[in-house]
Amino acid sequence: MTTSIKLPRPAADFHVHVRDGDMMKLVVPTIKQGGVSVAYIMPNLVPPLTKVEDVLSYKSRLEAVDSSVTYAMSLYLSPAITPEVIHEAKKAGITGVKCYPAGVTTNSDHGVASYAPFYPTFAAMEEEDMILNLHGECPSAGHIHVLNAEEEFLPTLKDLHARFPKLRIILEHCTSAAAVQAVLECGPTVSATITAHHLFLIIDNWAGNAYNFCKPVAKLPADRQALLDAATSGNPKFFFGSDSAPHPISAKEKGKNASAGVFTQTHAIAYVAEAFGKLGKIDKLVDFVCNFGRDFYKVEERPSSFSVVLEKEEDTVPLLLGEGGSAVVPFKAGENLSWKVVITEA
Amino acid sequence: MTTSIKLPRPAADFHVHVRDGDMMKLVVPTIKQGGVSVAYIMPNLVPPLTKVEDVLSYKSRLEAVDSSVTYAMSLYLSPAITPEVIHEAKKAGITGVKCYPAGVTTNSDHGVASYAPFYPTFAAMEEEDMILNLHGECPSAGHIHVLNAEEEFLPTLKDLHARFPKLRIILEHCTSAAAVQAVLECGPTVSATITAHHLFLIIDNWAGNAYNFCKPVAKLPADRQALLDAATSGNPKFFFGSDSAPHPISAKEKGKNASAGVFTQTHAIAYVAEAFGKLGKIDKLVDFVCNFGRDFYKVEERPSSFSVVLEKEEDTVPLLLGEGGSAVVPFKAGENLSWKVVITEA
Repeated sequence: MTTSIKLPRPAADFHVHVRDGDMMKLVVPTIKQGGVSVAYIMPNLVPPLTKVEDVLSYKSRLEAVDSSVTYAMSLYLSPAITPEVIHEAKKAGITGVKCYPAGVTTNSDHGVASYAPFYPTFAAMEEEDMILNLHGECPSAGHIHVLNAEEEFLPTLKDLHARFPKLRIILEHCTSAAAVQAVLECGPTVSATITAHHLFLIIDNWAGNAYNFCKPVAKLPADRQALLDAATSGNPKFFFGSDSAPHPISAKEKGKNASAGVFTQTHAIAYVAEAFGKLGKIDKLVDFVCNFGRDFYKVEERPSSFSVVLEKEEDTVPLLLGEGGSAVVPFKAGENLSWKVVITEA
Repeated sequence: MTTSIKLPRPAADFHVHVRDGDMMKLVVPTIKQGGVSVAYIMPNLVPPLTKVEDVLSYKSRLEAVDSSVTYAMSLYLSPAITPEVIHEAKKAGITGVKCYPAGVTTNSDHGVASYAPFYPTFAAMEEEDMILNLHGECPSAGHIHVLNAEEEFLPTLKDLHARFPKLRIILEHCTSAAAVQAVLECGPTVSATITAHHLFLIIDNWAGNAYNFCKPVAKLPADRQALLDAATSGNPKFFFGSDSAPHPISAKEKGKNASAGVFTQTHAIAYVAEAFGKLGKIDKLVDFVCNFGRDFYKVEERPSSFSVVLEKEEDTVPLLLGEGGSAVVPFKAGENLSWKVVITEA
């Protein structure tokens, strides 16, 4: 039985929210703690990052907190992101552009209502070999609701892929069997990230539980099974992106408008190991968390200053990260995990 | 345009939770306030009401708070409810027996795991012409989740109806198109209650909103439409039962394990009028809230001491009923309704 796994290099997390200010200072150190040395940083700050200089400034603030992680950066798609900005961004070392449909999740008020106006931008991204990160949901209205919002988006994914076949596209945090199937049907330039928490959750888990509520919402048992199958399949189209989304307790423990997001950064790789281990697929872990994402992204990174070993050892998820009303409750707070991430400085 | 509706008699609400103790004292007066003079009272106290004497004692406590409402009473189905208890209950004037599947909703820990052991009890109820109130959900497990829990229960409804064709059965708070269809397919001894809040809510409304979270959960747009169609159809199989379920703020504004239930008692008939009015079906209101349920139940009631008029008049739902941490937040708190219930003492 496997009791210890030394990762050939620390894991990479291709969907990370660390906010700004005090929350950033609280959360950024947990990237490494979770076993990760490469983090793809989402741009949905308040206001969103729509300028190259703002992204670079944010990157500096992240590096000031923890310089041992490589931060791959993204812009927030908006009318400000012209083809000229794309060329500028590429030169500045920015990796991709995140597209939020308007109004579907945290800080998406400035998101996209229609894709066609951005075709010139997507063409420039294709030319520059930048990555388009899609939050793949249609806003709820009429027959569209949180449970089919992702499936309803899939024709848009396929349409964009057909229009820009060389553009690398990631369907972020895919949550449904339909999304897995759609990604499989696309060419090699289309991949998907899968979170840790969607390997565990279904609709019942967020019914009456704000800490398990995120967007896209966790769906039905068959969808969770499809995600587990995809993540452990060994197909490089599917790789890890935690979508770890810290919200203070005060934004969760309220009756209405609880913020959407599950916080998994502190134990990111341990959660994935837990899910894979239960399926007897722990041998698929390294590719999913270390290799497939890096290969797709073609990340340039410094040699890591630390190494990561997963030990088969019971580890209890703390009840809180931080203190007071701004503390964050981690996923599975107070529960035991079977794998523990051990960090060793080089 | 209709601007005033005098109900021929006050409304009847055939699914009411008013708890006990201080919460009872807070909520019972709102039955009348909502336009209702007959309330069918649910037995899921802590501990549940499994003895005739306890039900009678509870009824006395309710009458002590407000004697102007007729309280039709129920027992909580458990192994203690033998055929002998049914005969005793009938003599004591108890109307029905509520069956909760184990673990599906508030205070259902003592609920039913298997129906067959209760066949003698159901036979006695059929003989005594008592009513069986079914919380129609299967517990979540395997392929069953909160969204299909009701549909998965429907074969049980049909099986019980086939075994006890003269037993009056109510599928309580039906929430799905499948449930509406199943009730239509059953004989005249099977009816369904429909709540006010399920005429408004879908899954999106309780995603991240504990105040809109109840069991059965509100489902998809097509399900809501089926409920609206059934409630306004003029088919006497469908009548009003609010399932108004008061929980203190402290049980709602928490991260995990928010209590399931929507509180609608204060504005019960106004909410229904709002939903019917928006569909241009206000003419169907009186049968749905006053007549069909009484006809099915064959309720014996005293002449009402008050009369109810619905005025077409903007009315804002208060933010709270009661004070402090034990206060209750009503459905649509702070929102405007188009109809106002006006009570006049006889």
